[in-house]
Amino acid sequence: MKSKHISQSEFESFEERKRARFINTLSGFKSANLIGTKDENGLTNLSIVSSVVHLGASPALMGLVIRPDVSPRHTLENILQTKSLTINHVNSSIFKQAHQTSGRYGKEQSEFTACHLSEEYHSDHYAPFVKESHIKIALELIREIKIEENGTHFLICAIKDVYLPLSCLSEDGSIDIESADSIAVSGLDKYHKTNKLARLSYAKPGKELLEID
Amino acid sequence: MKSKHISQSEFESFEERKRARFINTLSGFKSANLIGTKDENGLTNLSIVSSVVHLGASPALMGLVIRPDVSPRHTLENILQTKSLTINHVNSSIFKQAHQTSGRYGKEQSEFTACHLSEEYHSDHYAPFVKESHIKIALELIREIKIEENGTHFLICAIKDVYLPLSCLSEDGSIDIESADSIAVSGLDKYHKTNKLARLSYAKPGKELLEID
Repeated sequence: MKSKHISQSEFESFEERKRARFINTLSGFKSANLIGTKDENGLTNLSIVSSVVHLGASPALMGLVIRPDVSPRHTLENILQTKSLTINHVNSSIFKQAHQTSGRYGKEQSEFTACHLSEEYHSDHYAPFVKESHIKIALELIREIKIEENGTHFLICAIKDVYLPLSCLSEDGSIDIESADSIAVSGLDKYHKTNKLARLSYAKPGKELLEID
Repeated sequence: MKSKHISQSEFESFEERKRARFINTLSGFKSANLIGTKDENGLTNLSIVSSVVHLGASPALMGLVIRPDVSPRHTLENILQTKSLTINHVNSSIFKQAHQTSGRYGKEQSEFTACHLSEEYHSDHYAPFVKESHIKIALELIREIKIEENGTHFLICAIKDVYLPLSCLSEDGSIDIESADSIAVSGLDKYHKTNKLARLSYAKPGKELLEID
């Protein structure tokens, strides 16, 4: 493949949307998740994000980058107000509705209704889950870190409850998110199904890797 | 699909490795990247990470979670020492070598040599790139945030230079990372190729989404 070099001065000269498309794709494939929240008055909100990241298993933590200048503004407000949120994997049956939640809906309009997705509640968790999602996680905000460099917020959240298809969970704790139909996203707007290449054994120096499962 | 509820008290009772496998998969599909670094004495290091996240396009920033207690310890030391790193997309031809870099190699042993990947240098950037990767990014450390909740480090890095296949870059700035053979990872050890479902138009309330490209 013929390689092209794009320097900082070159991509900084790109027009704003072009630059966003370019930079947004560089990190590689991203998770596609719907963040469910509800404000103190009971108004629900749903927002697609591709910035959920694993932080650690013990304690069980996830991180989440929120850009308050775009659509998840109400999401951020609700999380700061109630400390409650859900993360719901996007699957191939709902990716268009999920993408539609990125439209700039008013505070009074729930994206659940506007984008034809259904609220669901479990275990006294305040924030709503997405019924059509197959893997759903209840979380509680632990701490907000402001990223002064660009006005984004990094949220550290604790995992409280997990709901997933019984058939996707292995004895050893691993989850087959591909068979749960979870999908990946690249850039601002591309959605991808996956095909497993392999599951590999734990790496040790001087030891050959095995394909497992 | 029959759903299963796993509560916090249940997953906290899982044996350590089982719990790591379970929690690590919950965020969804992740990027698969190799982080190239070099210490002040010229010793190179290479480490696979699945925690690179897009932070913003203007300024062009990426975030990266590093767990110093496991294999990328030398990566963290080198980045703090030199401020220089590269991010290199893992593709389907090198995912086994990439996974092997997660073995606990000694400081004096370069994972480039041990895992049969090749160093490459561009544009006076101090850290090495991975020759076999198709999408490679030069970055500079801006700031380290300590995540006290679990002893991890969140690194905010500025994008300096990008190298990618000419054929993957569209006029509108978007990059086709699927045709560059970049792959996704789930959990600790599963690697996946992707198949594009669709690229969707910019979402606006009341406007129907179109498939573009």
